[in-house]
Amino acid sequence: MTTAAAPYLIGVDLGGTRIKVLALSEDGTERERLVVGSDGPDWAARVRSLVDDLHARLGPSLGIGIAAPGLAAPGGRCIAHMPGRLPGLEGLDWTTHLASPRPVPVLNDAQAALLGEVWCGAAVGRRNVLLVTLGTGVGGAVMCDGHLLRGHLGRAGHVGHITVDASGPPDIVRTPGSLEDAVGNHTLGARSAGRYHDTAALAADVIRGLPLAVDLWTRLARDLAAGLVSLINVVDPEIILLGGGISQAGDTLLRPLSLAMDPWEWRPAGRRVQLATTHLGDLAGAYGAARQAQLHIASPSS
Amino acid sequence: MTTAAAPYLIGVDLGGTRIKVLALSEDGTERERLVVGSDGPDWAARVRSLVDDLHARLGPSLGIGIAAPGLAAPGGRCIAHMPGRLPGLEGLDWTTHLASPRPVPVLNDAQAALLGEVWCGAAVGRRNVLLVTLGTGVGGAVMCDGHLLRGHLGRAGHVGHITVDASGPPDIVRTPGSLEDAVGNHTLGARSAGRYHDTAALAADVIRGLPLAVDLWTRLARDLAAGLVSLINVVDPEIILLGGGISQAGDTLLRPLSLAMDPWEWRPAGRRVQLATTHLGDLAGAYGAARQAQLHIASPSS
Repeated sequence: MTTAAAPYLIGVDLGGTRIKVLALSEDGTERERLVVGSDGPDWAARVRSLVDDLHARLGPSLGIGIAAPGLAAPGGRCIAHMPGRLPGLEGLDWTTHLASPRPVPVLNDAQAALLGEVWCGAAVGRRNVLLVTLGTGVGGAVMCDGHLLRGHLGRAGHVGHITVDASGPPDIVRTPGSLEDAVGNHTLGARSAGRYHDTAALAADVIRGLPLAVDLWTRLARDLAAGLVSLINVVDPEIILLGGGISQAGDTLLRPLSLAMDPWEWRPAGRRVQLATTHLGDLAGAYGAARQAQLHIASPSS
Repeated sequence: MTTAAAPYLIGVDLGGTRIKVLALSEDGTERERLVVGSDGPDWAARVRSLVDDLHARLGPSLGIGIAAPGLAAPGGRCIAHMPGRLPGLEGLDWTTHLASPRPVPVLNDAQAALLGEVWCGAAVGRRNVLLVTLGTGVGGAVMCDGHLLRGHLGRAGHVGHITVDASGPPDIVRTPGSLEDAVGNHTLGARSAGRYHDTAALAADVIRGLPLAVDLWTRLARDLAAGLVSLINVVDPEIILLGGGISQAGDTLLRPLSLAMDPWEWRPAGRRVQLATTHLGDLAGAYGAARQAQLHIASPSS
């Protein structure tokens, strides 16, 4: 038996700009990483040829999993709802498309990222985990009692779309005064009267102590704290993972966030929820997709 | 074999003012209902004697379940955290206290009520359910993908403690500007400048069209709508059950609530979440406790 025949899983993450394909050992060790652009109408054919290429070189995989934006259909064979991006994604049956002898499970990308972090990242062994991704928008996913929440339409864990100010205007999915609009980079220009457009620049000025930057950052931490303490009371995590571009500020974010949560977090018997940043970065979705394929082999209803 | 020997389950709901004990057939048919006060230091002994009485008259039960306020301990043998009410409840091991040959599962009362409604009430056969109880305070519970959420500290589903206005004052568990404070009866006096103290009187004046009442009611519906659309995006239910005293207003509540949700609810492919009121009233917790005992027999890890 050669190394090439060692068992492995394939995880595919379909991003808005890049497609990531990982070949991983059963313990999550990375064997191959393929990254290509996701532009153009032939992105799905490109995924097929990357998977075929892995199979040709490494032998048949144990299983393949897909992480994608949008809402996965019940049964998880396709994405049912994803207007706008990746044309043709809606309704595409991946088991058929990849001519896989086994069902290919399809997960929402944030849900997959959480599964990846629990498998090989910042929340290994945890059973109650909240992931919040802070980037252009705010997304996330929830694991509760060891169960990754999907929900009736696959929408569970869209934690950016909770109200922090019921008097505020509706966001992209119509939530009034949402966490996403209070914190996501897409409103940073408006929130700063045009002064900032990305968080790296803002965080640098926070470290320098510039009053406008500090004021914006304090408000961001406050609104994020209100959202997180609310979510804590609904899904009761033991750890909150912060991912996405804004979380790269690290302690510059975690310190004021933690201070803002101190007076607001419900801490039964003094127990507080741990805050941490993600470990797997933008590979988390592909890790989670592979993990889902692995779980699916063990228990097809998972 | 006599009727008295027919198999049955016992569900106990420990309320702040009353203790309800139900004997139920395996299909949920009510066989006996015992209700006593929960005041005084000997409330736990009273539960024991009610259970002993059922066992003496009906023969041994298949199993016993307990619903109680507070946070259930991991493993569900006791309530770990419940400051203030029912002295002695914290840490009381019910399997031991009731001298039961089988483990007696203990559930948070709102989580039990949701399980009861899914078993025999307004959400039979549903797998994604949000329960929101609207009374003195606002509570609730969540079932997602058929799984009743407990969480790390047993606190999952405390949906009254989510922010609807991050600028507002902290509530009883420190959540700023919470749904509970915006909607619960305990703030109605303050919200109405002393004019109203219970929802029945308020709802009656809403039907009569009194401007102050209509204004208070519209604001209540708006804040509740903001909370519900937020929760929809986090736990993705197919149905929302409204329980508690305020929900007894029925259509007087559901109509303006539904109107307030119309512009704010995310409805992928036009799909909206069903709104309904609970069916089992204040017996839901005891039903759910019995159901949990039944599930526990089939699968001890449930």
